[in-house]
Amino acid sequence: MAQTLVVDGTDLTAYPADRRIAAVAADARAVYVTWDDGRRSVFHNLWLRDNCACAQCRHPEALERTFDLLSVPENLRAAEAGLDGGVLRVVWAQDGHVSAYRPGWLRAHDYGAAAREERRERPVLWDSRLTGRVPAVAYAGIMASDRALLEWLRLLRDYGVCIVSGVPAETRAAARAALRVAPLQRTQYGTTWDVVAKPEPISTAFTPIRLTCHMDLPYWESPPGYQFLHCLCNEAAGGESVVVDGFAVAGALRRDEPEAFDLLARVALPFRFVDRDTDLRYRAPAIGLHPDGEVREIRFSIALMDALDAPAHLMEALYRAYRKMAAMIREPQFEVRFRLEAGQMLVFDNRRILHGREAFDPRTGRRHLAGCYLLRDDLLSRIRVLERGLPIR
Amino acid sequence: MAQTLVVDGTDLTAYPADRRIAAVAADARAVYVTWDDGRRSVFHNLWLRDNCACAQCRHPEALERTFDLLSVPENLRAAEAGLDGGVLRVVWAQDGHVSAYRPGWLRAHDYGAAAREERRERPVLWDSRLTGRVPAVAYAGIMASDRALLEWLRLLRDYGVCIVSGVPAETRAAARAALRVAPLQRTQYGTTWDVVAKPEPISTAFTPIRLTCHMDLPYWESPPGYQFLHCLCNEAAGGESVVVDGFAVAGALRRDEPEAFDLLARVALPFRFVDRDTDLRYRAPAIGLHPDGEVREIRFSIALMDALDAPAHLMEALYRAYRKMAAMIREPQFEVRFRLEAGQMLVFDNRRILHGREAFDPRTGRRHLAGCYLLRDDLLSRIRVLERGLPIR
Repeated sequence: MAQTLVVDGTDLTAYPADRRIAAVAADARAVYVTWDDGRRSVFHNLWLRDNCACAQCRHPEALERTFDLLSVPENLRAAEAGLDGGVLRVVWAQDGHVSAYRPGWLRAHDYGAAAREERRERPVLWDSRLTGRVPAVAYAGIMASDRALLEWLRLLRDYGVCIVSGVPAETRAAARAALRVAPLQRTQYGTTWDVVAKPEPISTAFTPIRLTCHMDLPYWESPPGYQFLHCLCNEAAGGESVVVDGFAVAGALRRDEPEAFDLLARVALPFRFVDRDTDLRYRAPAIGLHPDGEVREIRFSIALMDALDAPAHLMEALYRAYRKMAAMIREPQFEVRFRLEAGQMLVFDNRRILHGREAFDPRTGRRHLAGCYLLRDDLLSRIRVLERGLPIR
Repeated sequence: MAQTLVVDGTDLTAYPADRRIAAVAADARAVYVTWDDGRRSVFHNLWLRDNCACAQCRHPEALERTFDLLSVPENLRAAEAGLDGGVLRVVWAQDGHVSAYRPGWLRAHDYGAAAREERRERPVLWDSRLTGRVPAVAYAGIMASDRALLEWLRLLRDYGVCIVSGVPAETRAAARAALRVAPLQRTQYGTTWDVVAKPEPISTAFTPIRLTCHMDLPYWESPPGYQFLHCLCNEAAGGESVVVDGFAVAGALRRDEPEAFDLLARVALPFRFVDRDTDLRYRAPAIGLHPDGEVREIRFSIALMDALDAPAHLMEALYRAYRKMAAMIREPQFEVRFRLEAGQMLVFDNRRILHGREAFDPRTGRRHLAGCYLLRDDLLSRIRVLERGLPIR
């Protein structure tokens, strides 16, 4: 059966309705659902009661939970649990409240091990073999078509990097593409900025020197999610671009140097930006893990790390681990190199992909990139909304 | 000696120059500094080399590190280490590079256990005994004086809550105060918003129902840091405000229910906001810890939590822990209650302080709050810049 948009009081997501509930059983602790493909799911009583989607338990317009979890006892029991037109229907013993759960919603929220494994995010890790094959899309497509927009955003989510071609030679072109997704992420540089060599630079980005692979703005708690770098012109000698998949590096480190990985995932590094009006500081491990142990972000910038502040007995081991990671980031096996041409725009996950450039000679020609940032939250939200299949506004 | 602004190539901070270096020694691993108050500090060779502040190692305008840590060997040694006019001077054996470290900077970055303990952030935890004594400042003061602004921001940093009085009856007054600190934090509600009961609400905030203590917008990775709630009028019966120090609750939970605390600090809870144009989701533990184990944020909203998605074998224990925390948040011993009056503005750390309100009766009079948010990063940056003592722009 095709996906259909079912607003069942919990949200606006279309849950696949391709699995039916075959059988239901209940005991004092939980309701046990057997699906038509043989999967068995356990839904504990408090979990079910907490997710009742009736108009009394969830505000029908705000879609927020109005049910108060503390209004029911811990030993809540189902007096009845059964199927009613394919829908799981539970009558609660203590107060007779009736809850109903559509199979599509229930299957999508199954917290059994197999279902959780199916839902796990799976970034596509890459190395130097991506050279010449970096995911690419056309500017005209993503600007005109919601379908092309969705495909592009999925590439960014999964690969963390994409080259957009055919970008008009206008300084606002990058921002216009980003605004197809969400409002721009503001930083101390504003919402849009230019990378050109200039006098009295407040960042080394605004010099012609080589920049080894790094992320931008690690001193914000939530550093820029996706970075847009639109090449307006690149006539100077040098300035070749390099990108490295930080998640792939972290994976190799975890495999080859587990103690270094552990230290870099456990000890916070301080980062800092300072100018006349600003003193931004944040501490986070070089390798940020989800509570389940998956890598969720990389914080790495040799230029922007502040003086390490870790217990003295860890300092030497921490430097060893940090140098190991820094060296791995420069290994050719991880590097993808290319020359960003006028009309191309490099877009990447700033918290996963490390980016750098070779030195260039500003006397040999102009090099001008225009950029902006998007929050990760916003890009992922846009993917989910586009996946509903409704036109975006 | 008073603080003096010393720009020593590393940053723009004024480091106290009230301690002198009495003696310096070195071996193959580190330089050992004895201070005039008897403290002994160890600075490892790589740490010192990494923090060389000369114009060759740190870009003099961008203030970023240009020194490449991988350009020196791991067993880097000091050929000489001594004092030169009170400044620590090190000559590196491998390449003869000379580094100098001012005593104020060095003392401020000492990573010995005692120095790290002195630098630890110390939020002032509070409970119901703060009733009637919530930190308070006058709007006129914070708008006119940088000194009053700094005092107010320190109260917000340390107590997490402050009441501003004498706020003009203008819808932009809250934003004007927040803009003394930084640009406003944008959310899906925009940068400023109003809390009034209205039809077809997209949030229960826009209804007259009771809101138990919660935080706002937990489904953003970086939820609003500081929340501004300016009361323009409050003539309706009911609607009493409640605030609770979530850090104090977490502390009590850690002491009294260590297993519940551990689960809530370890297992991520999913949060979600959904409307026609948005589907924001984020997962984080209810109690967020710094890598060193200190509580850094609370994620708690009964209304905005999505269906729990945790390994099935943890589900019952997780609900027990979560209910324990929810019950503790409602204990009168933690609550501070007051009626927000017209002309007052409640400002609080949305990631520490839980806030709520009793139901009100919109037929008995108007109740209108105008609000906005600031990022935590921005507020802390402003404190540091104000502490330099230079006029802000």
